[in-house]
Amino acid sequence: MVSSHRLLDLLGVELPIIQAPMAGATSPQMVIAVSNAGGLGSLPSSLYSEAELRAALDTVRAGTSRPINVNFLSHETPPEDAARQAAWRQALAPYYAEAGLDPDQPIAAGRAPFDEAFAGVVEDYRPEVVSFHFGLPAPALVERVKRTGAKVLSSATTVAEARWLEARGVDAVIAMGLDAGGHRGNFLTDDLSAQVGTFSLVPRIVDAVSVPVIAAGGIADRRGVEAAFALGAQAAQVGTAYLRTPEADISAVYRQALASAEEATAVTNLFTGRPARGIVNRLMAELGPLSDLAPAYPTAGAAVAPLRKAAEAAGRGDFSPLWAGQAFRLAQPMSAAELTRRLAGVD
Amino acid sequence: MVSSHRLLDLLGVELPIIQAPMAGATSPQMVIAVSNAGGLGSLPSSLYSEAELRAALDTVRAGTSRPINVNFLSHETPPEDAARQAAWRQALAPYYAEAGLDPDQPIAAGRAPFDEAFAGVVEDYRPEVVSFHFGLPAPALVERVKRTGAKVLSSATTVAEARWLEARGVDAVIAMGLDAGGHRGNFLTDDLSAQVGTFSLVPRIVDAVSVPVIAAGGIADRRGVEAAFALGAQAAQVGTAYLRTPEADISAVYRQALASAEEATAVTNLFTGRPARGIVNRLMAELGPLSDLAPAYPTAGAAVAPLRKAAEAAGRGDFSPLWAGQAFRLAQPMSAAELTRRLAGVD
Repeated sequence: MVSSHRLLDLLGVELPIIQAPMAGATSPQMVIAVSNAGGLGSLPSSLYSEAELRAALDTVRAGTSRPINVNFLSHETPPEDAARQAAWRQALAPYYAEAGLDPDQPIAAGRAPFDEAFAGVVEDYRPEVVSFHFGLPAPALVERVKRTGAKVLSSATTVAEARWLEARGVDAVIAMGLDAGGHRGNFLTDDLSAQVGTFSLVPRIVDAVSVPVIAAGGIADRRGVEAAFALGAQAAQVGTAYLRTPEADISAVYRQALASAEEATAVTNLFTGRPARGIVNRLMAELGPLSDLAPAYPTAGAAVAPLRKAAEAAGRGDFSPLWAGQAFRLAQPMSAAELTRRLAGVD
Repeated sequence: MVSSHRLLDLLGVELPIIQAPMAGATSPQMVIAVSNAGGLGSLPSSLYSEAELRAALDTVRAGTSRPINVNFLSHETPPEDAARQAAWRQALAPYYAEAGLDPDQPIAAGRAPFDEAFAGVVEDYRPEVVSFHFGLPAPALVERVKRTGAKVLSSATTVAEARWLEARGVDAVIAMGLDAGGHRGNFLTDDLSAQVGTFSLVPRIVDAVSVPVIAAGGIADRRGVEAAFALGAQAAQVGTAYLRTPEADISAVYRQALASAEEATAVTNLFTGRPARGIVNRLMAELGPLSDLAPAYPTAGAAVAPLRKAAEAAGRGDFSPLWAGQAFRLAQPMSAAELTRRLAGVD
């Protein structure tokens, strides 16, 4: 068993449990509860404007004086591609017709990458930890974050990505296995066959880098945390299990899917354009979870959004991204504070 | 941590390490070495005739008085499908031309499922353990095995498969995660998106069945064994790491691929018709690892065999099934006895 002291000292937390940032699901209250319980709460920024992020951070800072993590995406926004968007809307047209929606209604959706404005928020609020997904932003932006004293984390899905991150100065690497829910953190390769299960990935990355390693993917109860330690990780990042807490800000449809026994997950690009694991629903089953039709991240989501809204209003998750890891059925309903303590084995 | 006493008592072995049966790689000497070291050596039958299996068992029984496992396949041999075979040979024709091989040469290959003749071998040699892959054979055949006193194991790749096996009387379930090398044990579903990483699968199956669970997939060193125990398994089945022992009967090309740093694995059906994980080579890269062109298991291998033979003679693994799990780069060269002890933490 590896000692987690080095990482705990680095992050300034008591317990080796990081609540995964989950845009569209993590509430400020979840972050507060996890950090107050001794873990590291993580606030996702990607669905916030700068003003919204500042407001959320005001709430979080008012609720806890413990260290927090703010998570940012580091993708590049793709150029507009009207032809691909048209083809995508064409593929979805039968669903629009079925739902009685105007297929030509204006659509808009996006996920905001880390930029100058977000760097200003980090400088103002000085979160103790900043994590990135999809690699790292430009070096000058990373440098602005580091100058605030924040520790920097990012996810690796391969050994090559872990080495790349270490070479660019991250303080710890999140080893994100194929079991994980939500968006894969892959950034050096689009080849999904290169994606490796958590069990195989963690010890490989532990051997490959000298910074501490955080395991992510398939960890939903105490057994998973102990296994992550056995594989050489110094902490566990847990996402899906927090979706069953009352602090998760998710739809009733999503909550129901997470509690249902027989559903399976798959990696899909239909909801955003980038591979992410979720519970298989109607859109994934009918189009196939991975489709060349889905436009580049994050633009694929725009045309799906009206379908999602209409279906959720009718109590169906047919078009909703039901992000979940492969171990989602291990998760039990409980508060975020209790979950944090149980994962850490102190409850 | 779970105690493995129950499973060790059941199998009659000292150490909670099962060497995976690997047809085409496991030698009788490997089985002897593992069983003599205190683990459970496993002899694969599928590439043997009845007479060859008897000869191998004579060798194994002469080399060890400890418990051994004999592994059998329980697939059904598909009807001949001349049209699919012709299409498959057509797809491979450019490679035949490149290698200067006659594309119309007669071909033959197969893997033998468990049958009356093999049941007779079990009755004569009375291996202490019999494991099956791809589910279980007909109940009357399973009953013949059980009447010899052999403990029966089989692999599950989903919770549903684990429950199915338990309901049919297996003594323990091997929870085989997506990380594993070689043929997936899936038998209730062909949907590869239903396949789950070892990290996520093991605790789910531990919770779902009351028989002991053996973890398989991605376990190549002591850390993996400890993690498997943390997840609730009572033993670990390890395959790929044994390929780096001198007891592995594999080609120089295969041995070299296992030792090389940067190669990735993928699940492919090109070599047999059934999904199996191996190191990505030329055939997998050029046709895509999963192809609708590959005829049903085990018949796809016949047309590839001449290409493999010619390439291996030239020192290339372009057409060889280089079965390996996702953690294959963790494996180090050592003897099978030393590997068994190290995995068990007694060395």
